[in-house]
Order: sequence, then C-alpha cells, then structure tokens
Amino acid sequence: MQIFDRPGFPNPARIRIVLAEKGLEPQVEFVSVDLIAAEHKQPAFLEKNPSGVLPVLQLEDGTYISEATAITEYLDNLDGDPRLTGKTPKEKAVIHMMQKRAETELLDAVGNYFHHATPGLGAELQVFKSPEWAGRQDWGNRQRDKAVAGMRYFDTVLQDRSFVAGNAFSMADITVFAGLMFADAAGIAIPDDHSALKSWRAKVSELPSVKNRSGQMFVAEDLRRLGF
Amino acid sequence: MQIFDRPGFPNPARIRIVLAEKGLEPQVEFVSVDLIAAEHKQPAFLEKNPSGVLPVLQLEDGTYISEATAITEYLDNLDGDPRLTGKTPKEKAVIHMMQKRAETELLDAVGNYFHHATPGLGAELQVFKSPEWAGRQDWGNRQRDKAVAGMRYFDTVLQDRSFVAGNAFSMADITVFAGLMFADAAGIAIPDDHSALKSWRAKVSELPSVKNRSGQMFVAEDLRRLGF
Repeated sequence: MQIFDRPGFPNPARIRIVLAEKGLEPQVEFVSVDLIAAEHKQPAFLEKNPSGVLPVLQLEDGTYISEATAITEYLDNLDGDPRLTGKTPKEKAVIHMMQKRAETELLDAVGNYFHHATPGLGAELQVFKSPEWAGRQDWGNRQRDKAVAGMRYFDTVLQDRSFVAGNAFSMADITVFAGLMFADAAGIAIPDDHSALKSWRAKVSELPSVKNRSGQMFVAEDLRRLGF
Repeated sequence: MQIFDRPGFPNPARIRIVLAEKGLEPQVEFVSVDLIAAEHKQPAFLEKNPSGVLPVLQLEDGTYISEATAITEYLDNLDGDPRLTGKTPKEKAVIHMMQKRAETELLDAVGNYFHHATPGLGAELQVFKSPEWAGRQDWGNRQRDKAVAGMRYFDTVLQDRSFVAGNAFSMADITVFAGLMFADAAGIAIPDDHSALKSWRAKVSELPSVKNRSGQMFVAEDLRRLGF
C-alpha cells in the first residue's frame, strides 16, 4: 500500500496513528506531497483525489481511497478485528457519531478559523484557495468560538468516560486528538478549567501508537518555508 | 426504536430510505420535530443531540445516535448483512469515501447555499441561526458553484458505474439522492448535459425503498408556514 501524505498535518496524523495501532506501518510506503507548494491542488494529485485533500491511500489493485474515515474503515477491518471503528452495531454507531462530531465541532471548526481568519499557510497557498479565502475573517472568528465550544463539549463527555466514544480508544479519539493538534497550531488554547480534556490528552499522547509519531504540526522544513 | 425527524428534509429522508431498505420501518416509532419552529435548537432537543440537527435515533436502552452515517451504520449492521455500508474492507472504504464526498461536494454545499444565499427557511429560523447567517451571500453563492461542480463529478462517476460506489446501491447513493432533493428545493438544477446523473436519479427514484417515500422537500403544512 502507498499513503500520499505530509507529516505534521492533522489528517495525515490521524491515519499514521491508525497504521501504528494496527501494526501496519511496515506494509506502507509513504509518498510525501508538498502541501506548502499546493501540490494537492494540481492535476496529478486531483486525479487521485478530486477533493484535493490529504491523505490518500492507494491499494495494491490501484484503487485510491481518500477521506480519513474511509481509510480508517479499510485499515481497521483488514485483520477482522475492527476495534477502532467498532464491532457491534451500537459500537459502530457511537464511534461514527462521536467521530463526526469531532470533525464538525472541533477539527473542521479549527481548520476554518485557521484558513479564514489567520494568515493560515501563507500567501503562496492563498492563491490556490482564492476566492474562497477572501473576506471571511468574521466567519472565521466565529469558527474559533465554535471550536472552543467543541472543546467544552468533549471535556464534558470525558468527565464520564475514559475515551471519547466509551471505555476504549477509537477513531473518535484520534479525530479529537488531531483537532487539538491543529488548535495548537492555530493558537486556540484549551481553556484552563477543562481538566478532563487535558488529562485525556496527556494519556493519549503517551499511547505507543501516538508517542513520538504525531502531535505537533509542521515538519521543520515546512516551518521554515512558512516563515516561522 | 424511536426516530426524531421531520418528513420532507434531506437528512431525515436518508434514514427513511435506509429503514425501508432494511425492512425496519415496522420497528420504528417516528416522533416529529418541528424544524420550522426551530424545535431542534431548543434545550430539550439539544440534550438528545448537542449539534442540533435531525434525525436522531433512540435505541431501546435509551442511547441517542445522531449523524446520518452513524445511524446508517447501526441500522445496516443489525441483521449482519451490511450491504448499504459494505462487507469487505475495500467495499466499506469506497462506500465511506463516496458518501463523504457526496456530503462535502453536494449535500453540504447545497445546504450552505440554501441557508446563506437564499431566504432559506425564512425569518423565524434566521433568528436562531444568527450571527452565522448574516452577510454570507458571497460565500453562499460560491457554494452553489461547488454544488454544481459536485453534480458534474457524480455525473462523470456514473458514466462508468451503475451506482455511486460501484455496482450496488449503497449509503453513498442515498446521500447523493438527498443532495439532489435538496438542490431542487434550493433552485439548483442538474445541468442538461448530465445524462448519466439524470438516468441514475430516475432509476433510484423507482426503487421500492425510495418510491412514494422520499424525494420531495417539505410536507404541505411546512410549505404553507414557509409562505410558499
């Protein structure tokens, strides 16, 4: 299998955690896509994924799979033991519900704020995002409020549970973790009193599949090119 | 099981098609939520689904499941024959990918256009949406272009396949169908030359699970209240 991605970005991080959880890293060849140069918006990449977002999985038969949830379903079901996406109908439902909530209320909200109310990835990439990019600071700032409300929601959830979708680590935890990673980069801090969310994050950061593998945005080369 | 929804809206329609496909309608009690009066934004409903959107499934043990994909996963797996969400890892991946693409590129784009660049559901509901609602006509109109591009994409896909995710009807078809239903209500027509998409829609409209059950926005009472 090949994974087209870029280390240091939230959606690629989601799939790298899944690969580590499932012990599949040795079977994957990673192909780096130059996000800072907008390689993912060029025709060669759009043939792999018309939506123009990372990561993309290519199967041995040549099929391209995009969208983190879809890639996770594939990888998690390969060994017949889908503990990240759920085994029973109810487990599947709760995990998919919390996963989608983590995207809508946190990860996507942070991304909208980052891209529309901050300099985001800089002028180079704005060219490729225009006209979607322009004139959306107000909307973007409201997305920041939405992301903070999302943090409050997950803090409340985690006061009663060990993990986002119940008592086991799942795809929903991975999405919340990536959302917080993105929030760091966008400058949205977890409010001080959200101790359940902070404790959960500290615990997840120490998981073997997560530690030293993900959690920080941007590799050094990209940081330099972005002018940091 | 109970389903909290409203006939004549796109996401409730998705689940009603799933229930019919799986022969589960006799096991469900439908509870109508007054969307036009913004009942879904009031505290009693937000306890069921903090995201404030329909539909919501309540299981026999009291658990609430929201998000159409999560509800579909539950209902489709109850009989151990998940033909709407996929059986093999590759089927699951392709269906989830196309389903998500149908949301992002069509259903959500139509919804954004409808709510942000047209009168939408009218002044009553705008109160509850403000300030997200205001000043987004430009963005909304770009979402219309995105929805039309989404139609073109699915037309291209359907030139080579019987259904959106392959040769069988799946969750991805249901999402595209709901997207086109919403596009009708929003006044976004399928371009004349999209004959593959139009043929597919005519075929899906005749499926027993779809015919006479879904496909048109708004029940008569809601249309009257909306001033049509």
